[in-house]
Order: sequence, then structure tokens, then C-alpha cells
Amino acid sequence: MNAIILSVGEELTSGQTVDTNSAYLAERLARRGIRTIEHVTVPDDRARIAEAIRRSAGGAELVVITGGLGPTDDDLTRQGLADAMGTELVLDETCLATLEGWFRRIGRTMVAANRVQAMVPRGAEPLANRMGTAPGLAARVDGAAVYIMPGVPAEMKVMFDEVILPRLPDGAGAIALRSLHCFGAGESDVGMKIADLMRRDANPLVGTTVAAGMVSIRVQACGADDRQALALADRAAQEVRRRLGPLVVGQDEETMASVVGALLRTRGQTLATAESCTGGLIGAMVTAVPGASDYYRGGVVAYADDAKRGLLSVPSDLLAAHGAVSEPVARAMAEGCRRRLAADWAISVTGIAGPAGGSAEKPVGLVFLGLAGADGTAVQRIVFPGTREAIRLRTSLAALNSLRLRLAG
Amino acid sequence: MNAIILSVGEELTSGQTVDTNSAYLAERLARRGIRTIEHVTVPDDRARIAEAIRRSAGGAELVVITGGLGPTDDDLTRQGLADAMGTELVLDETCLATLEGWFRRIGRTMVAANRVQAMVPRGAEPLANRMGTAPGLAARVDGAAVYIMPGVPAEMKVMFDEVILPRLPDGAGAIALRSLHCFGAGESDVGMKIADLMRRDANPLVGTTVAAGMVSIRVQACGADDRQALALADRAAQEVRRRLGPLVVGQDEETMASVVGALLRTRGQTLATAESCTGGLIGAMVTAVPGASDYYRGGVVAYADDAKRGLLSVPSDLLAAHGAVSEPVARAMAEGCRRRLAADWAISVTGIAGPAGGSAEKPVGLVFLGLAGADGTAVQRIVFPGTREAIRLRTSLAALNSLRLRLAG
Repeated sequence: MNAIILSVGEELTSGQTVDTNSAYLAERLARRGIRTIEHVTVPDDRARIAEAIRRSAGGAELVVITGGLGPTDDDLTRQGLADAMGTELVLDETCLATLEGWFRRIGRTMVAANRVQAMVPRGAEPLANRMGTAPGLAARVDGAAVYIMPGVPAEMKVMFDEVILPRLPDGAGAIALRSLHCFGAGESDVGMKIADLMRRDANPLVGTTVAAGMVSIRVQACGADDRQALALADRAAQEVRRRLGPLVVGQDEETMASVVGALLRTRGQTLATAESCTGGLIGAMVTAVPGASDYYRGGVVAYADDAKRGLLSVPSDLLAAHGAVSEPVARAMAEGCRRRLAADWAISVTGIAGPAGGSAEKPVGLVFLGLAGADGTAVQRIVFPGTREAIRLRTSLAALNSLRLRLAG
Repeated sequence: MNAIILSVGEELTSGQTVDTNSAYLAERLARRGIRTIEHVTVPDDRARIAEAIRRSAGGAELVVITGGLGPTDDDLTRQGLADAMGTELVLDETCLATLEGWFRRIGRTMVAANRVQAMVPRGAEPLANRMGTAPGLAARVDGAAVYIMPGVPAEMKVMFDEVILPRLPDGAGAIALRSLHCFGAGESDVGMKIADLMRRDANPLVGTTVAAGMVSIRVQACGADDRQALALADRAAQEVRRRLGPLVVGQDEETMASVVGALLRTRGQTLATAESCTGGLIGAMVTAVPGASDYYRGGVVAYADDAKRGLLSVPSDLLAAHGAVSEPVARAMAEGCRRRLAADWAISVTGIAGPAGGSAEKPVGLVFLGLAGADGTAVQRIVFPGTREAIRLRTSLAALNSLRLRLAG
């Protein structure tokens, strides 16, 4: 079974708001074995809404729509559905009573504007909204099942999960999704190692995406039921892991920081950080993981040279001789940090994030990553391409990755 | 002039990734007076991509596409464009040379897989990518101008702003957008203060959105030309500022950290940070702003109590008597940080980000924010609702906001 997701709203087409509803719905549908083949977003324009509903109903068995059910003049999805059905809006007395009850319960008088929310295209069915005033709608257009929900995410999610999902047929089978996150190789390198798994007509379907500084391998498996789909997806995920080895950092919800944290927790070891150009980003990543206090002792953001000297005991002559962005300073930062924070491991970072501050000898993107442990200190020199934001992100991930590889042996 | 934005990627249609590119592009186009009438997202499927390009080219004068230009077998937008143009892919030698140069510069060997990124539909034109390997593409389909960019946001943004935007014609008339970012009040409170400005048929159109912990007031003005549209938008923005006063942090590209940074730079003053539950997030925000080294000295991530004692000189008996999450400890952290880092101002944060670690007396979301300056130290106690991520974000913004309000007088 295929679905098309349609979002309605000028704030979406104009780019003032990012549409998060469609991704939510697509993931929910996938778990039910229903594949989303297209997302469409149109403005608050009656003719465009009607046309998009008609076109979507012609392209998929299921059309799921959000937005445009509010009480104001720019809420036109009800009318668009009526046009697509070739019918008109009629007042639904039960809806009206529910709506009046809602306002009574929150101690407010219903204004006339809200009455339109009880209007339903003839032949369509209103759907209960436990979280707000706008009822949803269910209808059939050209043989396709059409469901419309409010655009407010909190209302949409409850209505979808409680009212619409139970009405959907189980897709023919189930879809299971797995994502493996890699670091340390480009998308093309990763792709070459798994090229034969990426045939477009294969099941599971395997693809790669670059997001947040990592290359993710997405596995999408179809099966007769949940168990079979999951088994297929997991088998493919294992094969990907076998091919990519230590490039694979983690899976699904795991992040670089959560994986490093789990390794530290298992060993009962602790971490401290000494950051210059990343300014606290590594610490922020590490502490984004609940329970990080079990292994993270803290860190120093040594942005000014004074801070490197005072809080990390980096010798002044080292700074004078080599500059703050140098191998010896990265080494001294990591060692000073490990000592001062009494941690088993310390990560240090010093570099030039740009856009200014680069030179021929020390270009923008140049970073030194230090890793100090009980058995000594290693320093890596890397030049990252990209914007200030990308350089800081990759630097932070690379620093954590060096510890991950060391801990994983 | 109308535009349709097309996004390509299985990770988008399946809901594994939220599409943020389309909103970025729609906003950029609007500033140029070009109205986006539809967003469409299709999976990595050659036939669906070609069909979506053809359909979009039939519905708008401009089609802007992102995604599917990577080097792996599931990157099929190049082929889809060739199909929509009724032509085939040919190797572009200049592209290939640029690509080989890119890999040489970052000290890596180009693998065979990347060669496909130098393939261009006959009659299409490659567009330079300063931030990555995939060149963009420009072509005409059915009389519409079609531009294709990589899906990686950092590459897409630079290519759109530097290469594509200068080629676009000015739309008939102009649209000017202004966003005012507020902190310290909820969306409904903000909305009530500007309710009369939010009429749906007004020009400028005024709306509110919540994003990244701030409430943004969006102003969209149409005018005969840039100057007229901008004047309309600015007049409305001024009225919003008048109503909201110090709730307004900044405008458009400004962030809480960039505004605080500008205030510090003007006064020639410096900042240091002492973070516990935010783990470096405040430092990361401050140093995300280019040139932050002019005023940011650095900070301490004092996650463990030892770090609070050792690096910030928080007395042991204070920690023992009041606990780490307390008014006296926040005060001592700010004062110790200001002294140790020799800064004019120090911000401190200690709190319980959850999900675990809360109690009846000290619930999840409880934070103490310290602000130390030459004239003394102030500590605020706040309880933030929401997830660990939301609590950390709001805590960081609130800490910077307390300094903003102090500096702005």
C-alpha cells in the first residue's frame, strides 16, 4: 500500500516554518507497512488544495493531509476537500455540540468563527480531536482513502495515533527501518564498500545519506510481518557492519557521544575535555546523553591563551614557540586537562574554525586533536573543509571518534 | 514569478530525516519576490524524479531541486533530469578536473565512484560547489528554469546564495521578510500583544512561530519594489518592537549569542562561562559566532563536583551544605569563573536536566543561573518544562539573556 502526505499552509510554502509533521507521519506509516511515495506542500489556496487532493488520490491508495482546519479565513482545507469530492459543506450537529462542549469545559464562550469547524463535506466523516477544536475528516476521493488532521503537531499526533491508525488496514506486510551511522570515510568510500547491497530493486533497500557530519546507511526491509521485516533488516545491517568494520559508530538513535559514553561506562572510566575552536561543543555533545555524569568529569573551554595557561597548565614558551594551533599545544592541553580533572581520558582540540584567522601555513580548517590516556598521548593533524559550523562539527566528532577507536580496541 | 521546490531522498519520504532545505529556499526566493507555490518530495527513484521534474516544470517558471547528486547508486537526480530533458549523461571534463583537484587539496585519492559526479545531462550546465564534491546543475525543461543542488544543507546554502541567486530574475514586485526573535514570554502572550497586527488579509502579513527555544514574529510585506516592501516590513517590525520592548532579542540572522557578543564588543568587555547541566552548550553558542575571540575568554564545564572545586574554587562546605544545584553554588561558580578567567562578566549554570536526578524539593528542570560582574553577582532560580534537550537549550538562552538585559541596561 502506498501513501502520499499532503501539508497545507502558507507558513510552510513560504519557508517561515519547517514541516515536521510529514516526517512523523511517514515513519508511522512505514511501521505499519505503508510506503510513502511523495510529500506535497501547498499554500492556503482553495483551488490548489483541491487540485493536490485530486492528484494525490490518483497516485496512491492513501492520502494523509495536515493543516488548514482552523477557524480563520485562511483555513481552507475543508472547502478544498469538498471541491475535490464535488460536493458542498454541511453543518454537522454532533460536531457543533462537541465544539460547544469544548469551549464550555475550558470556560470560554464559543465565537461565531469557530462554527465553520463543524462544517463537513457531504459524505465525509468528522474525526474526534481530543487536543483542540478542529475535528479531523475522513473521506474517499477516486477510490483513495483520505484523512485530514489539524496542522498543530500535538493535535495531529494524538489524532493520527488514536483515531486514524486503528482504521488503516495493515499494509500488505510490514516495513522495518535500520540506520547505521559511520564516521571516518566519505560517502563515496562507504558506498563502494556496499555497492552490491544498494541495488534499487533489492529488499532490503539500502541507501546512504550524509547528515550532521556522519554518513548514515539506511536499511528498509519489507516482510510479511514485523518479525520477518525486522529479521531481514537486521541481517542486512549485520552485513553492512561486517563490510565497514570500525567505520560504523552506532545504529538508529545512537550518537557518537552515546556510543563513547557506553564504552566508558562499561570500563568504569572517565573523560574530560579541553576545547579551543569548538568552544564547548564536545562537552555539549557528551552531556546531551542522559546519565553522562557517570563518566564525564567536565572540561575547559580554553579560548584565550590565558585560559590555556591558567586552567590547563600549557607552558607559555610552548604557546610562544609554536602558536596556539599546533601539535605541542594540543598535546599539552590534553595532558593538562587529564591531570587537572583527574580523568582516565582527556580529549583536546585546537584549530582554526574560520572564516578569518587562516594563513598559508595554518589554513582555515586546520585542527590538532589530542587524546591523552594512562599509556600516553596521541595527536592527530587534520584539515577539514567547509564552513565554520561544519569544521566545528567535524572536529568535535573526530575528537570523540579517536577515543571511540581507542576504547573499542 | 512562481517556483516549485523539489526534494529528492528516500530518507525524506520515509520520515528518517526532516527536510529543512525547502524552508530555507522558499524564504530566500520570497526575498527575491519569487513565490513558492508547492513543495514536493520524492524518493530516490529515477522514474519518480523524472516525472516530478516534468510536472513541476509544467506548473511554475522556476524549479529548484535538492538532493540525489551524491556518488552512490541511490543518487539518481542527474539521471532523472536527463530523462526529463529527453537526453543522456555525458562526462564533463572540466567537472572531472575540479573534482580531482578537490580530492588532491584535502590529501585524498579520488575513488572511481566519484566519477559519476562529473556526468552532466547533455545541454545542462554544471554549477560550482565550493563546499563539497557534487557539482550542481542548471537546465531548461519545458521552458522552466531548473536548478539542482546537493542535499547537504551546508553545500546547498552556499551554492544557492553564491551561484544560483545571482542568476535569478527579479520577481514582479518584491517581498520583504523580517523576523523578530523574542525570549522571555510564551507564544500566546506575545500573540496577544500584537493580535491586531496579525489579520490574515493585511499587508504586511504578521505571524508567530516557535523555533529553537525562541518565539519569532514573522513579517512578510509585498511592495512594488524592494525599497517599498522593505519600508513596509520595517515599519511593522518597529511597531512590533515598540509593543514587545526588551522581549525582542534580535532580528533576522541575529542569535542570542550574536547579540550578546555585539554588546560586549561595543563596550570592550569580556565574558567567561561556568557550566554544569548545559555541559558546554553556552560556550558552543557563544563561539558559533565568528570573531567571538574578541570578547570570549573561555569557560569551565564543571560537571563533576571535583571540577567545581578544582577549576572554579567552589568551597567544599558549600557543596556539602546546599548540594551542587543551589543558589550559593551558582553564585560561587560565577564568581570563581570570573576571577579565574579574568573576565568582566561570568555566567554560571547549575541544574537538573533530567530525565533522572529530580526530587520533590529539586525537580527536573530546576536551574540556577548566576551572573557575576564588577558590581556584584545575581542568581536566578527557574524551573523549565520539557525534555532534557529543551531544558538545556532554554537554560543556555536564559543565561545569555540575563547578560543581554544587564548590558542593554
